[in-house]
Amino acid sequence: MSQWRRRHGAPSLDVVAGNGLIDRRVLLGRGITIAGGLAAAGTVSGAAAEPLVDAPWSRAVGEPMPAVQTPSAFEKDVTRALSNPNGEFRTSHARTPHHRLGGTVTPNGLHFSINHGGVPNIDPAEHKLVIHGMVRRPLEFTLESLARYPLVTRMAFVECAGNSAPMFAKEPLQTTVQMLHGLVSNAEWTGVPLSVLLDEAGIDPTAKWLVAEGADAQFLDRSVPVKKAYDDALIAIYQNGEHLMPGNGYPMRLLLPGYQGNMNVKYLRRIKVIDQPAYSYFETKNYSQILPGGKTWRFHFLMEVKSFITHPSFGHSIKQPGLYAISGLAYSGTGRISKVMVSADGGKSWGEAALQGPIHDKAFTRFVMPWRWDGQPAILQSRAYDDGGNVQPLRAEFVALRGEASRPVATPLTFPNQHYNSITSWAVDSSGAIKHVYA
Amino acid sequence: MSQWRRRHGAPSLDVVAGNGLIDRRVLLGRGITIAGGLAAAGTVSGAAAEPLVDAPWSRAVGEPMPAVQTPSAFEKDVTRALSNPNGEFRTSHARTPHHRLGGTVTPNGLHFSINHGGVPNIDPAEHKLVIHGMVRRPLEFTLESLARYPLVTRMAFVECAGNSAPMFAKEPLQTTVQMLHGLVSNAEWTGVPLSVLLDEAGIDPTAKWLVAEGADAQFLDRSVPVKKAYDDALIAIYQNGEHLMPGNGYPMRLLLPGYQGNMNVKYLRRIKVIDQPAYSYFETKNYSQILPGGKTWRFHFLMEVKSFITHPSFGHSIKQPGLYAISGLAYSGTGRISKVMVSADGGKSWGEAALQGPIHDKAFTRFVMPWRWDGQPAILQSRAYDDGGNVQPLRAEFVALRGEASRPVATPLTFPNQHYNSITSWAVDSSGAIKHVYA
Repeated sequence: MSQWRRRHGAPSLDVVAGNGLIDRRVLLGRGITIAGGLAAAGTVSGAAAEPLVDAPWSRAVGEPMPAVQTPSAFEKDVTRALSNPNGEFRTSHARTPHHRLGGTVTPNGLHFSINHGGVPNIDPAEHKLVIHGMVRRPLEFTLESLARYPLVTRMAFVECAGNSAPMFAKEPLQTTVQMLHGLVSNAEWTGVPLSVLLDEAGIDPTAKWLVAEGADAQFLDRSVPVKKAYDDALIAIYQNGEHLMPGNGYPMRLLLPGYQGNMNVKYLRRIKVIDQPAYSYFETKNYSQILPGGKTWRFHFLMEVKSFITHPSFGHSIKQPGLYAISGLAYSGTGRISKVMVSADGGKSWGEAALQGPIHDKAFTRFVMPWRWDGQPAILQSRAYDDGGNVQPLRAEFVALRGEASRPVATPLTFPNQHYNSITSWAVDSSGAIKHVYA
Repeated sequence: MSQWRRRHGAPSLDVVAGNGLIDRRVLLGRGITIAGGLAAAGTVSGAAAEPLVDAPWSRAVGEPMPAVQTPSAFEKDVTRALSNPNGEFRTSHARTPHHRLGGTVTPNGLHFSINHGGVPNIDPAEHKLVIHGMVRRPLEFTLESLARYPLVTRMAFVECAGNSAPMFAKEPLQTTVQMLHGLVSNAEWTGVPLSVLLDEAGIDPTAKWLVAEGADAQFLDRSVPVKKAYDDALIAIYQNGEHLMPGNGYPMRLLLPGYQGNMNVKYLRRIKVIDQPAYSYFETKNYSQILPGGKTWRFHFLMEVKSFITHPSFGHSIKQPGLYAISGLAYSGTGRISKVMVSADGGKSWGEAALQGPIHDKAFTRFVMPWRWDGQPAILQSRAYDDGGNVQPLRAEFVALRGEASRPVATPLTFPNQHYNSITSWAVDSSGAIKHVYA
């Protein structure tokens, strides 16, 4: 070997599972890099033939900086998908474009949001949160008074119970990860532990439930077990460092890590401490899980272990054979992700992906798996495991338990449409086009 | 005690240091809350006397959701401070409003930025990064080809070497934490380890330096030791989940965790591998640390351990005696924050603050200290320690070593103006007004 050596030993890129999945240890920085194999297996980059040419933007002074910067105009199609862009008198959904994002934080502008009565424009100086009911002393709080408490900061995902509902359909819908799984996002939330406020109010020891109510036009209300309030509930006032987005509950919301999104009541104006659940519309009808046979689960709060591949996924195209990274998001309402397995042959064989740490409790974890595509058909899948021993179910297992949709997806109250957490499969054909399949 | 009990034992709020600093263990969730003491010591919240009244925004349908959401109109003054809002032909600074933010992530819209020739409007389809010089095979990369590598995700602060330069002034400037310390921000960055790309190019073992060059109108270039490239350098393409902001290097930048901001070259178009530093303008003049006696340090890269209190701080006012939280940010270019001590009596006594974990390497850590203000004058300080054994210096120690400004702060090249990391002191007077002092 000449003087041109690599700094580290060049590993063999051991294939660990079918269709070209490569040992994740090449990512773990033990003096091993992926470059050696790239030379052997076809390279990602091209050799630089041309000398540097100064681009137009290098030959003139650029733009002034704005007081609040926004993404490049070249990113103008990286937006939320809106189900009700004109604000008609019905529920509105805004879905996160996971197929266009990287890392684990969802930027605030793209955090998913669902509102049943539009987004209220709340003056924080006029908004109050009241804690009352079975307490020694009812209390009221403002954004300003909450900010005086010692605040807690944590990462957490929030997921709509109806996220991924299109996957209850009998045939796989040909659409993006945004349309399938865009009703989950992940942020750093900062707020006051609810337990601190309940203790200050002096909660009756026989109390079992809280009813949390929002100040939106529907007064969305949900019953929350007192135990959850003492486990890890926050009254959140910051989202990724700044005050909450209008669509995410400004100026304050309940955060119940791992529980279905609508229980994380936005625009929070009231917590009533009681001894039984309220059986509100939003917990007995709108967000109920209908089971095969027509029964429903009462109070199914937890968003269970789940993952999906974001890169590559439907809407992307793979232009030529070579080395790629399969990457996606995993999360669990019961704790931390312990492992994500990836398959490129529709589940016949699996390899363990690298996880980007630190791995947070009840928050997104990004997984990455190197993959050498040989130009042949492949079916990409991911399967997440959490530290509570829970495993993301296979689709066949899941459908047997929970049912499939026998009616159109557009009639959400008539078929099972909640808490879907099974595996998503992307089929790559020999042209590099990607379809959604059930496998 | 009546049936109205607290869920947990009510702690005494042990004072751990002068002027009302309270034991941080009240924050750590060992079955202890702060509520008991609140009742004894004056409460943050008010008792709720009025029944709930429906606000105007609860009585009408709200606004439609936009494709990209933006902060509430009530937050319109939470912006970056601009040094050159009209884009005149000079350097521009945009400073982060830390006194209006919480948590540890800086939202992308408010991430600090400095540009010497405006913000280039780069078409990512036309932008290339070339790695050349002492390599076996020169390579070029596009945003699309970089996205095919297994990407790494991490939190990291980026700080301008000139951040906090106003604190070299002989008299304390009466201004906000934004104007004093707003040239540092923290984000989740996702990109390709530079070591992977250098290994692919095949770096000459005698190479010692890289010259990184941007595609902005100044072609900002800096020399970087090869060792740093192999330690933890990334070519970052995502910032808090989305592609980089235009002012932060879109479509790709160098990320050198812990090294001064300008070395994290934005709009990166070239890395040349060489055997000696380039001695570029930006490393020999513009970002040089001038020492007492007129000498300068050659290649002082590291941003050393530092902290500052953001809440309360200059511009806030404390309206009445009672319980507050002292909160701020700590970070170190050498590793993780191990401890932050807080004083309310100008450094005569110190108490250990609670840290919001997990604590990331070379990233912001939020510290919090409960404080009962008795209405008397107080001087608030924070002092950070890192896991490398480094301690944030006292001002007297720091000035003795590094000097003070003998000329106006507006002439930055004529006085010591780099790498300021000493303690910031906020004096609270008996009216609750806050001044910046040296103590």
